[in-house]
Amino acid sequence: MRKRIAVMKGDGIGPEIVNEALKVLETVASKYGHHFAYNFVDIGGVAIDNYGTPLPQATIDACLEADSVLLGAVGGPKWDGVPGDKRPEKGLLGIRSAMGLFANMRPAKLFPQLAGASPLRGDIVARGIDFMVARELIGGVYFGEHKTETVNGERVATDVMPYAEHEIERILRVGFETAMKRRNKLTVVDKANVLDTSRLWRAVAARVAGDYPQVEVNYMYVDNASMQIVKDPSQFDVIVTENMFGDILSDEASMITGSIGMIPSSSLGEGTRGLYEPIHGSAPDIAGQDKANPIGTILSAAMMLKYSFGLAEESDAIEAAVNRVLEKGLRTGDMMSEGCTPVGCRAMGDAICAEI
Amino acid sequence: MRKRIAVMKGDGIGPEIVNEALKVLETVASKYGHHFAYNFVDIGGVAIDNYGTPLPQATIDACLEADSVLLGAVGGPKWDGVPGDKRPEKGLLGIRSAMGLFANMRPAKLFPQLAGASPLRGDIVARGIDFMVARELIGGVYFGEHKTETVNGERVATDVMPYAEHEIERILRVGFETAMKRRNKLTVVDKANVLDTSRLWRAVAARVAGDYPQVEVNYMYVDNASMQIVKDPSQFDVIVTENMFGDILSDEASMITGSIGMIPSSSLGEGTRGLYEPIHGSAPDIAGQDKANPIGTILSAAMMLKYSFGLAEESDAIEAAVNRVLEKGLRTGDMMSEGCTPVGCRAMGDAICAEI
Ligand SMILES: CC(C)[C@H](C(=O)O)[C@@H](O)C(=O)O
Ligand SMILES: CC(C)[C@H](C(=O)O)[C@@H](O)C(=O)O
Repeated sequence: MRKRIAVMKGDGIGPEIVNEALKVLETVASKYGHHFAYNFVDIGGVAIDNYGTPLPQATIDACLEADSVLLGAVGGPKWDGVPGDKRPEKGLLGIRSAMGLFANMRPAKLFPQLAGASPLRGDIVARGIDFMVARELIGGVYFGEHKTETVNGERVATDVMPYAEHEIERILRVGFETAMKRRNKLTVVDKANVLDTSRLWRAVAARVAGDYPQVEVNYMYVDNASMQIVKDPSQFDVIVTENMFGDILSDEASMITGSIGMIPSSSLGEGTRGLYEPIHGSAPDIAGQDKANPIGTILSAAMMLKYSFGLAEESDAIEAAVNRVLEKGLRTGDMMSEGCTPVGCRAMGDAICAEI
Repeated sequence: MRKRIAVMKGDGIGPEIVNEALKVLETVASKYGHHFAYNFVDIGGVAIDNYGTPLPQATIDACLEADSVLLGAVGGPKWDGVPGDKRPEKGLLGIRSAMGLFANMRPAKLFPQLAGASPLRGDIVARGIDFMVARELIGGVYFGEHKTETVNGERVATDVMPYAEHEIERILRVGFETAMKRRNKLTVVDKANVLDTSRLWRAVAARVAGDYPQVEVNYMYVDNASMQIVKDPSQFDVIVTENMFGDILSDEASMITGSIGMIPSSSLGEGTRGLYEPIHGSAPDIAGQDKANPIGTILSAAMMLKYSFGLAEESDAIEAAVNRVLEKGLRTGDMMSEGCTPVGCRAMGDAICAEI
């Protein structure tokens, strides 16, 4: 199989973690006889430095021409002074939107080898943590109008949160489909006791649910969801929610697994072209020191193989390699614990390649 | 001292938990020689049933004429079918707004007697959980325009999140003042990498901080805050944030203490007249069964004595009584654990009165 992959290393630890993922992809390519052609383009802070914009047109073009896209991480204190509409994060929001990636999937799954790293009590962890947050990614308050004006001598800022029925329906369907491949349970999270957008989400969910009689649906307010994720994460299979709630809850969900450096994500639209990135940030404090955990990015590459290229066997081979390396006790600094062997970013990548 | 207290028992377990708080207030009144006059009015579901509206004008009048207000809880499945603008919750939002209660204070504090009930790992709990969430309560997306229209043949819903500088400044000042009475640390939580309102919050915070040089300020994105509350709650002293983020994070914060039935809250505006209520909900499933935990409401009454009436000694006496009862091992069902003595709602209230 021949595939073109647009690669955006981004900022901070982005370049080093992406390099390890590329090594893994190359190992898979030679073992299974595939050919991946990489097109390296800039996004975020590095694009601001090189081109004066966090999302150059050439980057958008490269992503739209590619079969899929791999991203490291974006942002850092260096660009904190940059005005709102030119920040590194704008590049990320811009490419999500330009590619039409409305479905952001973030697995919250406990790696048994790392159970001790979960901040939750042992008996709660023992009940199991294995759910998926399906976050709407290109609508809501992220993409509504933002403005700041002077009214009666003081500044007034306004952000607008709009949702159209079709935007809600398509991510809900992804949620239902995902639940059907898992444990047939879908939790729709909203704030329907306050927001009109949330009431529309519930109305659309009630209609769409008719097409998925096998799936058990329940509705939960976002404030309650933020409690339930900590109280008993085993109750969840798939959570589907709007952009901002998904941002907050998926980070909370990743934290309770205790291994945020290991969590990949996929963002997909109508076709098979997706954007794959770890859910952690650019960690500027440890950038360039060979300390970062490359596993979140490596597992993102594995997700790409499965969901964009249909290469399930190759994807499983990467996951199995990651598991074996963890079982051998290799750990980057973020997940180090007694009795394990500390390794750097590169050594971790090499060890995973060796297991494939 | 003579004080008039408007009392809204509300729905579900509201009446029974408020009854216990009133017993405690009467015990304090007779011991310390005060006189409290109660004006009972309806809000929420019971007001819908009795008057066809969740917030009758008589209720607003009673609250505005009182020296302070005590509330049980509002809402329940009985009123789920009621249209958005007539729901029980609308009564709560309406009274907060009518009374100008912009500052909602929600303590997240571990009761050492209940440490085992925290869902967090023992070593994290041992570092201590004792912070305050100062939530802006009458602005933002809760009170911006809400609308649902038909555009190009489909429904489009919109919620608007506005913040004016003075709305931000007054709650920030409450945050700074609170930090100065505690450990001098303030965390401003926002989503300044996406929202204009959040960028205005940061700008106002940077200016106001100049008046509080003793307070160490830091800024945190809301997605990160939702992780940090679980990862290491001991890092927080006071969190100040906008309405919606405060709703989500304060519930998460209460859950990690493991004793959500014990947590009180105050909502204050410019004067000393406040609204005091437990942070938990109306728990319709156990309503009327003498099973509810009245301590959140009793401690809310204690907060009222201190913050609205300046009766610090009386307030402390209630807190001390609660502590003694917990030390004696009395527990309502929600916090029951091995070796403790199960009691109902009324018996818990009686035991606390006996200790005052
Ligand atoms: C960097 C930021 C704009 C982004 C978001 O909020 O979507 C990030 O937090 C994420 O979750 O991918
Ligand atoms: C009932 C609901 C409208 C309310 C809110 O969101 O403010 C509640 O969750 C709270 O936190 O007091």
